[in-house]
Amino acid sequence: MKNYKLTIQYDGTRYKGWQGQNSTDLTIQGKIEDVLSQMAGHPVEITGSGRTDAGVHALGQVANVHLEENWNGEEIRDYLNRYLPEDIAVTEIEEAEERFHSRYHALSKIYLYRIHTGKIPNVFERKYMYAYRNPLDVNRMRQAAEYLVGSHDFKAFCGNKKMKKSTVRTIYEIRIEETENEIRIFYTGNGFLQNMVRILTGTLIEVGDGRREPEEMAVILEGGNREAAGYTAPACGLTLCKVTYEKEH
Amino acid sequence: MKNYKLTIQYDGTRYKGWQGQNSTDLTIQGKIEDVLSQMAGHPVEITGSGRTDAGVHALGQVANVHLEENWNGEEIRDYLNRYLPEDIAVTEIEEAEERFHSRYHALSKIYLYRIHTGKIPNVFERKYMYAYRNPLDVNRMRQAAEYLVGSHDFKAFCGNKKMKKSTVRTIYEIRIEETENEIRIFYTGNGFLQNMVRILTGTLIEVGDGRREPEEMAVILEGGNREAAGYTAPACGLTLCKVTYEKEH
Repeated sequence: MKNYKLTIQYDGTRYKGWQGQNSTDLTIQGKIEDVLSQMAGHPVEITGSGRTDAGVHALGQVANVHLEENWNGEEIRDYLNRYLPEDIAVTEIEEAEERFHSRYHALSKIYLYRIHTGKIPNVFERKYMYAYRNPLDVNRMRQAAEYLVGSHDFKAFCGNKKMKKSTVRTIYEIRIEETENEIRIFYTGNGFLQNMVRILTGTLIEVGDGRREPEEMAVILEGGNREAAGYTAPACGLTLCKVTYEKEH
Repeated sequence: MKNYKLTIQYDGTRYKGWQGQNSTDLTIQGKIEDVLSQMAGHPVEITGSGRTDAGVHALGQVANVHLEENWNGEEIRDYLNRYLPEDIAVTEIEEAEERFHSRYHALSKIYLYRIHTGKIPNVFERKYMYAYRNPLDVNRMRQAAEYLVGSHDFKAFCGNKKMKKSTVRTIYEIRIEETENEIRIFYTGNGFLQNMVRILTGTLIEVGDGRREPEEMAVILEGGNREAAGYTAPACGLTLCKVTYEKEH
């Protein structure tokens, strides 16, 4: 029995997310399992580092899979890339320790949210950005982001109102880059709640356009009330860039 | 009466090209005319610098249009970008001299052909590259390209077998750039025949993979026989980058 670590890219536009609610949902995990099951000749299940929402993309999602067959990683990767749809690619497969678990062992994740602020639509990258098309004050957004960095109860930024587990998470860094027509927000943290990056982004946008003050972030965090935070920015702007593990497995 | 010069970007994936064969075809020209006609309240016709094939993209297609209304360029641009589908954008509109004609006055055009040579599919740019996925010898391709530069009868590289007009064109430069997973071929010329850039590219690929010798280019040009040249590389890899005019109109 071998345990493989897969690094996966996808254009999430047409998927119900990494994992779906119903077995008939079109999901990235489902597509990969279909091809692996076809290769193995029996049902195969994979474990992702976490779910991504419907429409969210990934540059470096990580999953792991146990397989009895004695294949090498390259063989599996090439088979997957041959039979997967063109909006999913496996960029890397390596053998991991038997106990490696892509979700439990993830130390941190980096998400990127892209906001197109230019007036002229971006035709070629339109599916990977939120077409906001208005200027935003990045300095105000950076001030607001400072309140969010650290260990906090992010209940106010959680899209799942029935969440029963802890809503405490640690954000290590929020980096905001600005170019002429685009703002890129990189979020690094030990984990993110459902919709959390999108709600954080929606709230930062409301600070950037003057609707809110940066200082409000402290109050929103303290209150733990979803209604107090901003809107959920659209899924298309979000990409899971990287999942980090303690060592290379 | 004002004459406007439009610079246009499009993702050509779902279109029958800049201009179609039938009036019901989904075309880029048709989409732009629809929105301008809606804005003007009467039918409007635009003139493109040249047709692009079905599935071919543009970063800088140029067109011109005569309008009686006394609008400023920015007004028209914003109206177009508001009502055009998200795979077409007008990046610039400027007033041109009354006699400016986007096709007759074009001095040169730059086309880019992108070939993805890497083994791992490129999920995010897959619609703008030809997924060749095998290595190509770029030095052989550069040697072959040297035979093509200059003024020649490109009949052998013309997709229209019934072409009655002159098939003589001048290629000023063919520049081939290589990165780890991609080859980019930039063609600059005074004009290109139907499918010409795609047939040139297909032939260069056959040199790059060893099926042909660079020296064959001279023979193919001389013979003027379409069957002697290579295959027509897929439309998705091709982008019209720029159309140049004598001066800014």
